[in-house]
Amino acid sequence: MITMGEVIYTGKAKQMWSTDDPEVLRVVYLDQATALNGKKKDEIKGKGQINNEISTLIFEYLTQKGLKTHFIKKLSATEELVRKVTIIPLEAVTRNIATGHFVTRFGIEDGTVFKTPVEETYYKSDALDDPFINESQTLALGLATKEELAQLWELSRQVNQLLSALFLKANMILVDFKLEFGRLSDGTLVLADEFSPDNCRLWDKETKAHLDKDVYRQDLGELTPVYEEVLNRLKVALEEEK
Amino acid sequence: MITMGEVIYTGKAKQMWSTDDPEVLRVVYLDQATALNGKKKDEIKGKGQINNEISTLIFEYLTQKGLKTHFIKKLSATEELVRKVTIIPLEAVTRNIATGHFVTRFGIEDGTVFKTPVEETYYKSDALDDPFINESQTLALGLATKEELAQLWELSRQVNQLLSALFLKANMILVDFKLEFGRLSDGTLVLADEFSPDNCRLWDKETKAHLDKDVYRQDLGELTPVYEEVLNRLKVALEEEK
Repeated sequence: MITMGEVIYTGKAKQMWSTDDPEVLRVVYLDQATALNGKKKDEIKGKGQINNEISTLIFEYLTQKGLKTHFIKKLSATEELVRKVTIIPLEAVTRNIATGHFVTRFGIEDGTVFKTPVEETYYKSDALDDPFINESQTLALGLATKEELAQLWELSRQVNQLLSALFLKANMILVDFKLEFGRLSDGTLVLADEFSPDNCRLWDKETKAHLDKDVYRQDLGELTPVYEEVLNRLKVALEEEK
Repeated sequence: MITMGEVIYTGKAKQMWSTDDPEVLRVVYLDQATALNGKKKDEIKGKGQINNEISTLIFEYLTQKGLKTHFIKKLSATEELVRKVTIIPLEAVTRNIATGHFVTRFGIEDGTVFKTPVEETYYKSDALDDPFINESQTLALGLATKEELAQLWELSRQVNQLLSALFLKANMILVDFKLEFGRLSDGTLVLADEFSPDNCRLWDKETKAHLDKDVYRQDLGELTPVYEEVLNRLKVALEEEK
């Protein structure tokens, strides 16, 4: 059924390929890590496989809970099939705890727990360095409609509730995460991209140790064993859920 | 009635003094201009007097139209009396036309007219360089309540409607402007700060020439004659209004 197709997009850690079904794409997870907007870049053996596995578990879990996503199925160790979407050019960031960029930008203490999660959008544009953007600007630039933004945040909040609880069962705190959304050919808004320690922050519940890409960003050690730890904990938690 | 009091705040172009009435402050407009977050700074003779006169005309006009402001009266060429407020630490920027910072940030054409004005807030913090902030972040940091933000933007929209029309009568286009708001001791939200070519952009209706602080920011010529031109045009327009 699936032919190789052509590369239609190469991202920082993934490649998208066309298939013989115009509504379906093949995603290949790469053994690559980048940070500082691409200024830092390394090959990290085994990362593609682990992220594919983690993201598959998360997307299957969210689908099972009734959320609409682009995910179809895992195809191989480093590949999955997804439904083709028109990506909304926004990164939707949800923060449960203040850390990283937020702390330096607003001068509050690292680790501050928000009463209500903070929601931020960034305009996906390599040329502009993904600038932080508010709703009024998003509407003025025609990047999304008011309805799409409302739907997108409604979905993000559901993801946050479900995954915060799931990760907690796996002794991890979901500190913050970045989601992307797209429209199917029938216009339905769905969760797209991936969910892995590349685009979320996870802290060990007890030690607060970083279990995410901050290990790479901050040169705290080898990345693969950390991601494997996340995967293993997640498997146990999902097993207990059953 | 008014004693000299003490300096309670020194800003980039104004000084606030206490008076013998704890609810009243004296504002002194200074002959000073700054740009690039204070990196560029100059004494500009006569600027304080002109800005005081322009801001007085604008605040009197807005008060006459029913808007609540901190303004009491002009006291002298460079001084006015205002009601003491607790400032909400936000700069509320309204953009009718894309220019300056917005154009480089979002890569759209200079002079693009927005269908609906763009609204942005900046967190007033010298230490943090006044970062751009969205509603969710504002609420999380406790800088304002949801109700205050709604009131603040409602007032900003009224200001935009009234002043866009007024400046147009004076053959000027109100491109964008920055407002600040505060609470009176009884909690009422009022427009505070000033309204002058220091915190708005005005373009000549025909030539699109800059009639605002961009003349100083971009070293386009002497500032005082430009501000005087704005004042004179405004006086004529207000006279016609009567």
